[in-house]
Order: sequence, then C-alpha cells, then structure tokens
Amino acid sequence: MKNIIVAQSGGPTTAINASLVGVIKGALSSGGYDKVFGSLYGISGVLKEEFIQLENLSDEELHRIYSTPSSYLGSCRYKMPEIHEDSSIYEKIFEILNKYEVAAFFYIGGNDSMDTISKLAEYGSSIGSDIRFAGVPKTIDNDLVATDHTPGYGSAAKFIVASMLEFAHDTSVYKTPTVTLIEIMGRNAGWLTAAAALARNEYSDIPQLIYLPEVPFSTDSFIKDVKEVLKSTNNVVVAISEGLQDADGNYLSATKAACDKFGHAQLSGVGKILENLVKEELGVKCRSVEINILQRCAAHMASAEDLEESELLGEKAVEYAREGKTGYMTTIVRTSNEPYEYKIELANLDGIANQVKQVPKEWINPSGNDVTSEMLDYVRPLVCGEVDIEYKDGVPVYADISHLTGAV
Amino acid sequence: MKNIIVAQSGGPTTAINASLVGVIKGALSSGGYDKVFGSLYGISGVLKEEFIQLENLSDEELHRIYSTPSSYLGSCRYKMPEIHEDSSIYEKIFEILNKYEVAAFFYIGGNDSMDTISKLAEYGSSIGSDIRFAGVPKTIDNDLVATDHTPGYGSAAKFIVASMLEFAHDTSVYKTPTVTLIEIMGRNAGWLTAAAALARNEYSDIPQLIYLPEVPFSTDSFIKDVKEVLKSTNNVVVAISEGLQDADGNYLSATKAACDKFGHAQLSGVGKILENLVKEELGVKCRSVEINILQRCAAHMASAEDLEESELLGEKAVEYAREGKTGYMTTIVRTSNEPYEYKIELANLDGIANQVKQVPKEWINPSGNDVTSEMLDYVRPLVCGEVDIEYKDGVPVYADISHLTGAV
Repeated sequence: MKNIIVAQSGGPTTAINASLVGVIKGALSSGGYDKVFGSLYGISGVLKEEFIQLENLSDEELHRIYSTPSSYLGSCRYKMPEIHEDSSIYEKIFEILNKYEVAAFFYIGGNDSMDTISKLAEYGSSIGSDIRFAGVPKTIDNDLVATDHTPGYGSAAKFIVASMLEFAHDTSVYKTPTVTLIEIMGRNAGWLTAAAALARNEYSDIPQLIYLPEVPFSTDSFIKDVKEVLKSTNNVVVAISEGLQDADGNYLSATKAACDKFGHAQLSGVGKILENLVKEELGVKCRSVEINILQRCAAHMASAEDLEESELLGEKAVEYAREGKTGYMTTIVRTSNEPYEYKIELANLDGIANQVKQVPKEWINPSGNDVTSEMLDYVRPLVCGEVDIEYKDGVPVYADISHLTGAV
Repeated sequence: MKNIIVAQSGGPTTAINASLVGVIKGALSSGGYDKVFGSLYGISGVLKEEFIQLENLSDEELHRIYSTPSSYLGSCRYKMPEIHEDSSIYEKIFEILNKYEVAAFFYIGGNDSMDTISKLAEYGSSIGSDIRFAGVPKTIDNDLVATDHTPGYGSAAKFIVASMLEFAHDTSVYKTPTVTLIEIMGRNAGWLTAAAALARNEYSDIPQLIYLPEVPFSTDSFIKDVKEVLKSTNNVVVAISEGLQDADGNYLSATKAACDKFGHAQLSGVGKILENLVKEELGVKCRSVEINILQRCAAHMASAEDLEESELLGEKAVEYAREGKTGYMTTIVRTSNEPYEYKIELANLDGIANQVKQVPKEWINPSGNDVTSEMLDYVRPLVCGEVDIEYKDGVPVYADISHLTGAV
C-alpha cells in the first residue's frame, strides 16, 4: 500500500483549498497511490495522528472544497527545530509516516511551511528514506521567491480592487474635502497594496496615492502629496500598506510617536496613525479603513485564474513526486504576458524559506507614491475570472468543516 | 411641459440607485412626464441648478446604474431650516422648480431626507403649489419607521452574513483560543448586527454572541459570556454593534475609560475597546475587525430582493404622485413571511423623520447576548438572491460617475 499525506499551514487564503483539491485529484488520477490522509492542523496533526481520509470525496464535495475559503484541514504555526538541535521529532514523524505507509507528503503553505518541508526532505535524505516531500506555495502576500506569484495573491488582489472601486463610488458622493486611507495587508512586501491601482478607470483615478513598504516612508512627503491631490479633487483615497517603515526600517505602526500620541502601541495600525496626522496637519475630514481579514477569506470574490493555478500546482506536485523528485516546491513560471501564459515547474526548497520577494524598485514611481504600468501588467491577469459560488437562501454555501469546529 | 426632479441624499447604500432607476422608469412609462432632471448632491444641487438629464438613458445604462453602489447623483447632508425660521430658501427652491416646469420632486434618502421632503411638501401646501413631493426610503441601518424594512438593509445584511461565514472559516483553522470581535454599523439600532446570526449553519455557530444597542451593555456580563463560550470552543466570534451603550445611555466608544486607557477618544471604536478588555481580563488572543464602509457599498454582494424592492419603491412613488398625492414616503408592507410577500404602500411623512425603529425587545434573548428566531425569520428573505454583475478583466463594471468625479 502506498499512501500520501497532505496538510495545510500558515495564514488562511481563499486559494489554499484549490491546491488541496489538486493534490487529492492528482493522487487519485495517478493510479500510484491508495489512501489520501489529510492531516488536521498542519504538521502538528501528523504528530498527533489526527487524520481524515480524503480519497472518497465525491466530485461535488471536491468542487465545494475548491471554492471554500481558509484551510479545510486547519492550520498551525509550528516551527520545526533544526535537525542537529533535536532530531527526536523527526524520528517520530518518520515513524508515523512509515506506520501509515506514506510514500509522499505534501505541505501547502507559505514561508514557514516551506521551511518545514525542506527540513523533512533533508532529514529523509540523511536516513535514506524514499518518502517524497513537496511544498505547494500559498500566501496572499505574494512574497515567496522562485515563483512568478503565489496562490492566494490573485484572489486577495481581486477583492482589494473591487473594494477600492466601490470605495471610489462611496467617497465620490460628497463635495466636502475628504481623505480616506485604505490599509492593506503586507508586512514586508507591497504586492497587495500595489494591486489597488487596478481599480482606476475612465471616470476615477482612485487610489490617487499608493505607499508600499519597499519605499522608506516620510510623513512630510505624505502630507505634501495628499495636499497636492486635494488641490484637484475633494476626494482623496490613499492605498497604504500595513508594513510602512521609516528610513531607519522601523514600522510606522510601532513608532514611539504613535505610542505617545495615541496610547498603547497595539492600537495603532498605520491607518489610524496617518488618519490623525492628516486631521492635525491638514484639518480635513479623514477616515481610515482596514480591509482586514476579509482580503484573505472573501471567497465570494475569488479569482478564477488564481484557483485554477492553485489546483494545478497541487496536481503537479504529485506528478513530480511520482517521478521520484523530493525537496521541491512547485512554482509558476510566466511565459507570456499578452496573452497571459504560464507553466508549472519546480524549485529546490533550499533557501526559499528565508527570502522575501518585494515589488521591484523599477515598478514604483520615482516619487515613491505610486506604481508603474509594469506593476499593473504583472497583476492584471491574476485577478481575472469569477468563481461560480453556490448560494442557499442568499448565503454562500461552503464546505462543511465540522471536523474543525467540532459541530455534531 | 411637465418634468420631474429626482435627487439622492444621506449615506450611500448599494440600493439607492435601484430606486433612482425605479423613479426614472416610472416617470417615463407613466406618459405623464417629459424630462427627468437628476439633481447633483441632493437638495443643494437644486439650489445651484446642478442638473443632469436622465430621460434618455439607454436600457443598458439604466441596468448598470441599477447595480452600481453609492449615490449615482451624489449626496448631501443639508439640513433644511424650519419654514417659520427662514422661508427664503423655500421661496428660492420653488422658484427654481417652477422655472424647470417641475411637477413632482422625488427624494431618495433616510431620516434627514424625509425631513427635507416633508418640509417642502408642507411649504408647497401653504402656498397652494400643485407640485408633488415624495420620499423614497433608504438606509442600511433599517431604522426608519412606517416601513417593514428599508432599501439597502438587505444588501448590507447579505454582505455581513457572507463575511461572517467567511470569518467562521478563517477563525476555525487554529487550535489556539482566540476571540474575534466583528464591529458592525448601526449607531442606534442593531438590525445589521442582528443579521449576522444568519451565518450560522450545520457546522458553525459563529457568531456565538451578538450585542445590540437596544440592550444596555455591561462589560462584566460581556466578559462572563465570552469566558463561558471559550469553555466549549477555541474560536469565539462576537458580533457587536458600533452603537453599544452603557446603562446610562453613554456610547461605549466615547466613555471616559476608553480615553484614559487608549488615548484619544476618536481612536476608540467599540471593537478596539472590547479587544483590549478581552486581552486584559481573559489573557487570550483577541482581534477586532471593523467591516466598515464595505457593508454599505459592496455592490458585488447586493441582495437581488433588496434591489428589486428598491426599484419598485421608486416606481410606485411616481405612480402615487401621478394620482395627485404629496407629502408621502413609499413603504414596504410585509403581507406574508412564508412565502415572503409584500406590497408597496405609502405613509404620511409627518413624524417619520424624527423616529428611530429599533429591534423589538422580544426578538432579543433574555440574556441580551443573542437574537431570537423571530429576528432571523424577519431578515432571511431580505438577503435572498444574487445580482448579476458584469466584470471586465476581473473587475466589476459599474456606472460611469464622471459627473461626480470630474473626470474628462
């Protein structure tokens, strides 16, 4: 008997379950594997042998899981120790993998998950195991290296763009000068914030300003920029990344100034800090809006392109394992932009985990308050296509996750 | 020549343009009116004669306006003086209405807008004018009296319910005890917050707790409630209204305690205040999320039922004006709940403007931390049906509002 284990880890996205479906379908269609164990709560489920079997799901169930947000199998933030520091946990994991006759292990996740799978592959090689280990990437932040982009990014970007366009309508109705600051996720990379520029169209230039963590943030320049835009319009909407940092690399959201002015630092998201700054410096109405966790779980606005690619990355991961490969992550290689075309390849996991891919400096304008057309050309194909969601009584129907919620 | 003016006022909703389309279609199909003037920025556009003509819009354009969020004609927060205090503004408005040969004036809006239309009708009667004045209700808050519910409420509720279900998936992935507080709009009425209960299904009881402004809020009871729920689950999600008030009627978001603990009061939304309280009192991970302006402008998740009713309220307003009525607001009268059926009637505007309709006490559980099945039966039909939105390159296509944005 040859079985596989699949698990998910890290922050939720709307695409992580499409990759799960890809792995399941890939395993079943390959003819090379028997059982598909889903480990609950990532690698920690392996250690506790918390498995559910996935090989008998119907097409209908698989289809529903495909478009369900967040991790169907649950997640964890478990950091594996270095092998030389503590090998006992590796021994235990391999004991369990052998017990369940596991021939391949697939881990769908971001940076930390790739670190886990990389260490497992390394340990496996060191003991001469023939179990295959593969990573399938995901992160809305799009900050993984070695892949053109990551599953989850396109869907999060699509939700941000749609919201930004809706904000453009919402903020255009009054004649009073108003500044609206939209805080978007991304601690170290501005990919999601940059995507907001796609909302611009023939009747709206919102967001007029965009600030990414890639550019050292100056409050003076920011106030100057906003003042300038207010000369030509009453409604300024600014896309700001939660990860804005000053010239010394300190997060704006954790500065001393923020603590002194507005109390406990935990309270001070960058949006609130800049909202107060605008009110004080410019004396205009200002509101800050955090798109918050909706951007990573709004499956009702997922990108069809994103989910298709995510599924394929899962399927291909199984195919490579069948070919005997191990210690890799499947990646997207863009082969053409117009028309948008790509192929799935694989990258060695070494070093992937500890790198951060940022928006290239050339894709940010010289003033550091907008992105260039190259950035737009990059992200445009990734938000394309709508996913057909089933509704019942007006509410989206997603996959039953009672194995996580404990509902009877 | 007999013309009409239509205008929109108050906070944006996703349904206010469906009513606009209803008024336009009603006017054109009645055969009784010639031109349809859209006044930009509410009543202030009338004073400045800022009109756009709407009688020649194509069916395609009307259809696009129908599903476009926010006020197509712009809005204002203009408070009309009492007639006996300053009649000059009324004289000016009637002069302009006569100049444009206006036979009927339609104002789509909430409480303040109904106040405006009521005063105009009253002044009209006092001078023996035969111009008809009608209000078409809208407000996501659903706090207008005399109508079963208001346009905009169903769509906002639908977005909240879908988001809440997506939060249920998002928060269920970790095993760590976590409290998530979802702050929902509604300063004086908890209709939107109460709707969150519709997200519950066979695998999720999220939100486990619901707090409305209708019940005096006790932080002690709240902490006790959360603690209790944490005994049976790791993931507590609480729906809280932005308008929570203590036993003395003080808004939680403006309490002295909030200022002392967390700095400037402006910063302290009720979510942030309770987030810190949970962290301090229970020592568990807590996050607060404001759904914010998305709940009033997320047209991509509008309720088809809501938009249909909104259109009909506009159409019927014209019909009643043609019959010679004035000084009224069109209303929804629910005639059956299963199946859901309603009819459009009208209510005299006197007194409507200054009342607030709250969630009935009988629809709130005795502990004051949840709603009853009556509340669910009330709101369920209002979120039904999805609106077909056109997408281009993955982005929703809404009506061109360059007359507001000034884009060439």
